[in-house]
Amino acid sequence: MSGERAFLLDLKTRVGRPGGSVRVGIGDDCAVLRPKPAHEIMVTTDLFLEGVHFRRDWHSPESAGHRCLARGLSDLAAMGAKPMAAFLSLALPTELLRPARRANGKPWATRFFDGLLALASAHGVPLAGGDTAQSHSAGVIADIVLLGQVAQGRALLRSGARAGDILYVTGALGGSAAELIALDHHAQKQAARAGDHPQLFPQPRLAIGQALVRRRWATAAIDVSDGLSTDLDHLCDESGLAAEIDAAAIPVHALAVEAERKRRARSALALALHGGEDYELLFAAVPGARIPKAIAGVPVHAIGRMFKRKPGTPRLLLRQADGTARELQAGGWEHLRD
Amino acid sequence: MSGERAFLLDLKTRVGRPGGSVRVGIGDDCAVLRPKPAHEIMVTTDLFLEGVHFRRDWHSPESAGHRCLARGLSDLAAMGAKPMAAFLSLALPTELLRPARRANGKPWATRFFDGLLALASAHGVPLAGGDTAQSHSAGVIADIVLLGQVAQGRALLRSGARAGDILYVTGALGGSAAELIALDHHAQKQAARAGDHPQLFPQPRLAIGQALVRRRWATAAIDVSDGLSTDLDHLCDESGLAAEIDAAAIPVHALAVEAERKRRARSALALALHGGEDYELLFAAVPGARIPKAIAGVPVHAIGRMFKRKPGTPRLLLRQADGTARELQAGGWEHLRD
Repeated sequence: MSGERAFLLDLKTRVGRPGGSVRVGIGDDCAVLRPKPAHEIMVTTDLFLEGVHFRRDWHSPESAGHRCLARGLSDLAAMGAKPMAAFLSLALPTELLRPARRANGKPWATRFFDGLLALASAHGVPLAGGDTAQSHSAGVIADIVLLGQVAQGRALLRSGARAGDILYVTGALGGSAAELIALDHHAQKQAARAGDHPQLFPQPRLAIGQALVRRRWATAAIDVSDGLSTDLDHLCDESGLAAEIDAAAIPVHALAVEAERKRRARSALALALHGGEDYELLFAAVPGARIPKAIAGVPVHAIGRMFKRKPGTPRLLLRQADGTARELQAGGWEHLRD
Repeated sequence: MSGERAFLLDLKTRVGRPGGSVRVGIGDDCAVLRPKPAHEIMVTTDLFLEGVHFRRDWHSPESAGHRCLARGLSDLAAMGAKPMAAFLSLALPTELLRPARRANGKPWATRFFDGLLALASAHGVPLAGGDTAQSHSAGVIADIVLLGQVAQGRALLRSGARAGDILYVTGALGGSAAELIALDHHAQKQAARAGDHPQLFPQPRLAIGQALVRRRWATAAIDVSDGLSTDLDHLCDESGLAAEIDAAAIPVHALAVEAERKRRARSALALALHGGEDYELLFAAVPGARIPKAIAGVPVHAIGRMFKRKPGTPRLLLRQADGTARELQAGGWEHLRD
């Protein structure tokens, strides 16, 4: 039996039988899912390409598998959806199916699925299908598809915020970018397991998104995947509003503070504002909403507010320590590094 | 504005506003689909990789776009599902976003979407999301995701056939493989538009699949994507049965007959039995079912029957012109060519 065939049979065994929302899983022309009555279906697809979304020399196979699924789960979290099923399309160079020389001999592909299925299991998400092919290029090609469900009309959209709404963010920001910089400086040992590794093992905030829907706390939400400034810009764009956030209120991750202290990054705040892949939630709530200090065990911080934009004024403002406000550019990596 | 950004904005305009099953399309963390009450959701994902599933020197960009979507639609057809929405993840080498020197200057990517959206429009399928990235390899990377719906419990599974059921196939087989061989021999001009080009522009049999569900005609179905012998083997495997088909009854495509006549292939029948990518439907029906000679304008042929397998006997039998039956191997390309 070929390595690929054996690998797929082994995978089918690991994935297990259909159940829950999944009536038919791997093995037919399509998977068959049964949504709850009066629910809507959320769908998200995310490419996960070697050299673009991860590097084999920086991310362990377990981290790559975890991150691949986390990307999709975080999109479901941002809608407040309960996951129904995941689908993975995967094309691998054949050598990644062969036993490795180190690390107890497990093939890269097996360890990738170890990481992916551990996160799937933690959130009760069945892997219900996908596709496989041989990658003729040297790199790993993956596309992760997630389906979730929310009661009709209750999904958290980017477009739901109103002027006056307060902005909140979960957890802490800038840690993922800081850990990536540390990996680039060979200053961070690659971790093989989840822990506090915001870059290697980000935690999608599904329980928080679902609580926001259940308690009707949020008017709009988005996940912080491109960086706070960029994702806030998306939220403003879709809601037709402007926003002001307070620099002193932004929760900065300890790894970002460390990166500044060790002079690996110019500013911890810049990492928190522009560093991507934190997979925290940014959401808006009406001023009177009693948002707790923590949801599902994760701290929640008020960081600013939404307002009606006046013509000729910036869409994003950053209130600084001295009380003045300056324009905040939806930014990226290019200004981050020394 | 970068070429990629301009291209995506243009695409968003072409795709249009949400409607039908799609409540929220491109632009939020997830698309939001609203299934009909008491319906189940079918999901299929298919990789479509340059060098594996198509070749840029054989397939026009329109053909590539058409085939990419047809792969997914055909899986929905095999379940009898009505399409709800398509999602495309696409990573392209940047030069494919630039205006081409020939063919009225349209970039390859634009012509790819011309082909994909023409087929989507013909079947009323909205493109409701996806993902894009830059391909660091030289090749096009695509993953197509289709969602469809069928009334609860009515989807056509591979596992539903019973001993005694009659086997039917739609259209004609072997044409796709024959056209591919002709392209390899430079004997076929690349077509830019749909017509009778079973390889370049295969027609997914959605209307037939839906009729099979509506009229309760079929007990099981599969699409002929890997080749009749292989897909029949899948049907037998999932239904726990054996099958006999009659060589004289198999509808052989005219292009396969031509390939044999011109000595490009050893046997037209072998192309019909083992050549893949015809995207016709193979289905089983109870003996008393009054299956018409054509469904939705496409001929339907009875080609054999399912039966209980006796231990030690082959799973697939081929009845030959002289009345004898020989074992049919679930086969592939390797035996096809001269």
